[in-house]
Amino acid sequence: MASRLTDRTKDFSGWYQDVIDQAGLAEHGPVKGTMIIKPYGYAIWELIQAELDRRIKATGVVNAYFPLFIPKSFLEREKEHVVGFSPELAVVTHAGGQDLAEPVVIRPTSETVMYDAYSRWIKSYRDLPLLLNQWCNVVRWELRTRLFLRTSEFLWQEGHTAHATEDDAQARTIQMLEVYRAFVEDFLAIPLFVGQKTEAEKFAGALRTYAIEAMMGDGKALQMGTSHNLGQHFAKVFNVQFLDEKNTLQYAWQTSWGVSTRVIGGVIMVHGDDRGLALPPNIAPIQVVIVPIGAEPTVAARAAEICDELLVLNIRVHLDARTELTPGFKFNEWEVKGVPLRLELGPKDLAAKQVVLVRRDSGEKQMVGWDALADTAQKLLKEIQQSLFDRAQKFQKEHITTAVTYDEFKALIESKPGFIEVTWCGDESELEPIKAETKATSRVLPFDQPEPTGKCFYCDKASKRKIYFAKQY
Amino acid sequence: MASRLTDRTKDFSGWYQDVIDQAGLAEHGPVKGTMIIKPYGYAIWELIQAELDRRIKATGVVNAYFPLFIPKSFLEREKEHVVGFSPELAVVTHAGGQDLAEPVVIRPTSETVMYDAYSRWIKSYRDLPLLLNQWCNVVRWELRTRLFLRTSEFLWQEGHTAHATEDDAQARTIQMLEVYRAFVEDFLAIPLFVGQKTEAEKFAGALRTYAIEAMMGDGKALQMGTSHNLGQHFAKVFNVQFLDEKNTLQYAWQTSWGVSTRVIGGVIMVHGDDRGLALPPNIAPIQVVIVPIGAEPTVAARAAEICDELLVLNIRVHLDARTELTPGFKFNEWEVKGVPLRLELGPKDLAAKQVVLVRRDSGEKQMVGWDALADTAQKLLKEIQQSLFDRAQKFQKEHITTAVTYDEFKALIESKPGFIEVTWCGDESELEPIKAETKATSRVLPFDQPEPTGKCFYCDKASKRKIYFAKQY
Repeated sequence: MASRLTDRTKDFSGWYQDVIDQAGLAEHGPVKGTMIIKPYGYAIWELIQAELDRRIKATGVVNAYFPLFIPKSFLEREKEHVVGFSPELAVVTHAGGQDLAEPVVIRPTSETVMYDAYSRWIKSYRDLPLLLNQWCNVVRWELRTRLFLRTSEFLWQEGHTAHATEDDAQARTIQMLEVYRAFVEDFLAIPLFVGQKTEAEKFAGALRTYAIEAMMGDGKALQMGTSHNLGQHFAKVFNVQFLDEKNTLQYAWQTSWGVSTRVIGGVIMVHGDDRGLALPPNIAPIQVVIVPIGAEPTVAARAAEICDELLVLNIRVHLDARTELTPGFKFNEWEVKGVPLRLELGPKDLAAKQVVLVRRDSGEKQMVGWDALADTAQKLLKEIQQSLFDRAQKFQKEHITTAVTYDEFKALIESKPGFIEVTWCGDESELEPIKAETKATSRVLPFDQPEPTGKCFYCDKASKRKIYFAKQY
Repeated sequence: MASRLTDRTKDFSGWYQDVIDQAGLAEHGPVKGTMIIKPYGYAIWELIQAELDRRIKATGVVNAYFPLFIPKSFLEREKEHVVGFSPELAVVTHAGGQDLAEPVVIRPTSETVMYDAYSRWIKSYRDLPLLLNQWCNVVRWELRTRLFLRTSEFLWQEGHTAHATEDDAQARTIQMLEVYRAFVEDFLAIPLFVGQKTEAEKFAGALRTYAIEAMMGDGKALQMGTSHNLGQHFAKVFNVQFLDEKNTLQYAWQTSWGVSTRVIGGVIMVHGDDRGLALPPNIAPIQVVIVPIGAEPTVAARAAEICDELLVLNIRVHLDARTELTPGFKFNEWEVKGVPLRLELGPKDLAAKQVVLVRRDSGEKQMVGWDALADTAQKLLKEIQQSLFDRAQKFQKEHITTAVTYDEFKALIESKPGFIEVTWCGDESELEPIKAETKATSRVLPFDQPEPTGKCFYCDKASKRKIYFAKQY
C-alpha cells in the first residue's frame, strides 16, 4: 500500500492516476475505455447522487427511466444532434442470435428517445410543464480515455423538461444551472465559473448552453455540469406539440441538463494534494476514521465506544480495528483516501480521557477531552468543508489573469497555468485559430458582464463581452 | 381516463396490460422489447430500491459499479454460462465510427466481468469475504416481451460475493435468500414459496440455485428473486484464488443473487383487482390522496392544512387540487393507481370537523374526526399493508393442491389454476416430458421436507422430496 505518489507539480496526470489507484476509487475495465467504479469511489457517487437527487426533486422534477437502446433513425432526425454524436456512437447490429433489421444505438444522451415519448404524453397546456429526470449510464465511444473524466460509459443524471413558453424554458434552464452551482459549491466545496458557452462549445442541438466550470489543481478547466435551453428544435423534429389555452397547437419549449461521475474527477483534481485525495466531509464515505494505538484491550474497547458515540450523531465513522497493520501504515492509507478527520486513541490518551484529532486538510493535530469530542468533531467537519472551499477559491483567484492583447494572451498561456480573462468581440470564427495555436478554448461568458468598453483581445474590434479562456479536460 | 379494465377472470394478460396503461406505470419503448418506466412506476421502484439497498447493506455488502460492456470471450469461458446466455446476447460490433476488432457484449449479468476483477483484487484470506452489489441495467434480448416481466433491458441489483470456504458461500447464499424473503413478504406484502430450484431451472453456471416464488392472481408462478451458490466454477475459470492462513493457494467459493424490476409485475398481479392496481402502503408513492369536494375556498384551505399535517408524520400524501376534474373522475383515477387510502373533505365534513377515509383494499368508508385523523391514518396504512398480505396468503392457500399420481396432476393442471404439490423422486429427466405435456414446470423444493414416505407422482419410484409445480411467467 503505502507507495508514493507521482510529483503533481511535474506530472499532474500521473499524480491523478496514482491517487485513483491508491485511494481505491476506480480502475479500467476489460473493454477499452470502460471503468470499474470500486466501492470507495462508488460510495462517493452514492452521496453525490442522494443529495443532488434531493435538490433536483425539490424543484418539482420526478424521476423516470427510458431505454438504453435508441433506433438509429431517431438520432438522425435532428441535424446538429446527429453531427455532434455520430462519431461516438456504439451500435448493436446483432442480438438474440440474429442480425438486426435496423441497427440500434446505445444512448449517448436521451433527448431523442424521451421526446418521442413526450410527443405522445403531451396533449394540452395542462400537461405542462413536464419535468423529468433519469439516473442512468450513457455511452460515448472514446479513444483517449481517462478515469472519471472521459470514459466510453459513464453514469449521470439527465433532466428533460417541456414548457408552454420560451420564458418558462429559459427560467428552468437557469434554475437548474443554479441548482448545480449551489450543489457543487456547497457540497463538493468547488468554487465555480458560471455562465453561457459560446456557439462553438454548446450542446449539439441546443439553442443556448450554460455551464458550471471549475479550475483544477493544474490550472486547467473541467466542465462540471451543463444546462441547455433547447428552444423548439427537438419539439419540431419529434412533434412535441400541445393545445394552448386558446386551443391553438403549439410546439413545446424544452430544456435538458446533466451532471455525471466526471465531477468525482473534479473533486480529486481540485482538493487532492501531495498526500493524495482530500474529501470534503459532505461527500466523504468515511468522515472520521478511528485508529487505536497499540494492542491493549481497554483501548480497543474505548475506541469501539467512541465509534458508537459518533455514529449516533450521524457522523460517518469507521473504526480501523485491523491488528496486522501498524498505525503508521493506517495513517498513510486513510490520508491517501482523503478521510477528513483521523482520531487516534492510545494508552496515554485513555489515561488522560482524551483523543488526538488530526485534520486531513491542514495536518493540524489537537488533543480533545472525551466530553468535548462530539462537539469538536462536528465543528471540525464543518470547518474542513469550508477550508477546502476557501483553499480552492484562493488558488482559483491566484490563477486568473487578464490579457488585453493576443500577444499577452499567448505569453500567459505559455507561462502560467490557469484561466485568462479577456474582452472578446463575439466573432465565433476566431475561436478555432486561437485553439489551434494555443490549445486554449472559450470556457464561459459570465453573467456579470461589464459595459462593453474595451477592444477585442484578438481582432481589435469593438468588444462585446468578458469571457474566460483556458486549456480544458 | 376513467376507461374500463379488461375482465381479469377472462383475460388476465389483457387486464395486466390495462392496469399498467391506466395506472401510468410503464409503456413499450421504440426498440422492440424495451420498456419506458413512467414516473409513477419508477417511484415504486425507487421505494423498492431504497429499502432493499438498506437491507442488503445491513448484511455488510457495499455497492460498486462494473461496466456495461463485456468482451465476448469472457462470456465464453464458463461452459454452462455461455450456453445459457448466448441466445439472448446483444452484441456491439461497431463503435466510434469503426468496426470493433473483438465484438463486445452488453451484460446479461455480470459474473464474468466482476470475477475477472476479483481475480486481481483477492490475494489472501484477509481479502475475504468480498461482498459487493451493483444496481444497474442488464440486457437479455427477448422476442416475446411483457412489461416488467420480460423485457430486453431491465433494472436490477446483482450481488456477488467471494468466500474462503464452501460453508461460508452456502451460508451467504441462504442469508441473501432470507433477505429477499423478508423484504418481499414484509414490504411487498407477497407471501412466498421458498426453496431450491431443480437442476433444470438453476442458473447457468451455478452449483445450486435457490428462489423465492410467488403465486399470481391467475394461479401462475412468478420467480421474484434468486440466490445462487456458484461453488468454485467461476473461480476456476477466472482464477479467483487466495492464499489461505497456511499459505496454500485456494480457489474462492462464490455466490450471486438478484432481484429486478420484475417484482413490480408481481405486485400488480398479486394485489391488483377489478378496479386496478392496489399498492401495499410500504411501496406506494402516494399513501394518502386528498380529494376536496366542491370548489369552496374554505375546503381547499383546510385540505391543504391536512396535507401538511400528514406530511410531517412522514406519510406520503398528495393533495389533488385539480379544479377541472370531478371528484368521481379523481376517485376512479386514484383507485386505478392503487393509492391505499383516499381522504375526502367536503363542506359538510368541514362543518362536522371530520373527513371521510376510504380504504382501497376493501372499499370500506369511515368518518374520522380531525383530532383522530393522524392516528387513524397511520393505523389504517398498517392494516392495509397486513390485509393485502393476508388476502394474498388466503388466495395462495386456496390454490395449492396435492396430486398423488400423474393423472391427478394432469387433471388438476387442466381444471384449477394454482400450484400443485407432489412427491417427486428427483429424476431430472422427467421434468422435460412433464413440461411438454402440461406446460407446468418445477418451481421450488421447499426447505421443510417431510421424511420420504410416498412414491414419485410421475414414475412410482420411491420418492425423495416434496416439490411444487406450476405454470410460470
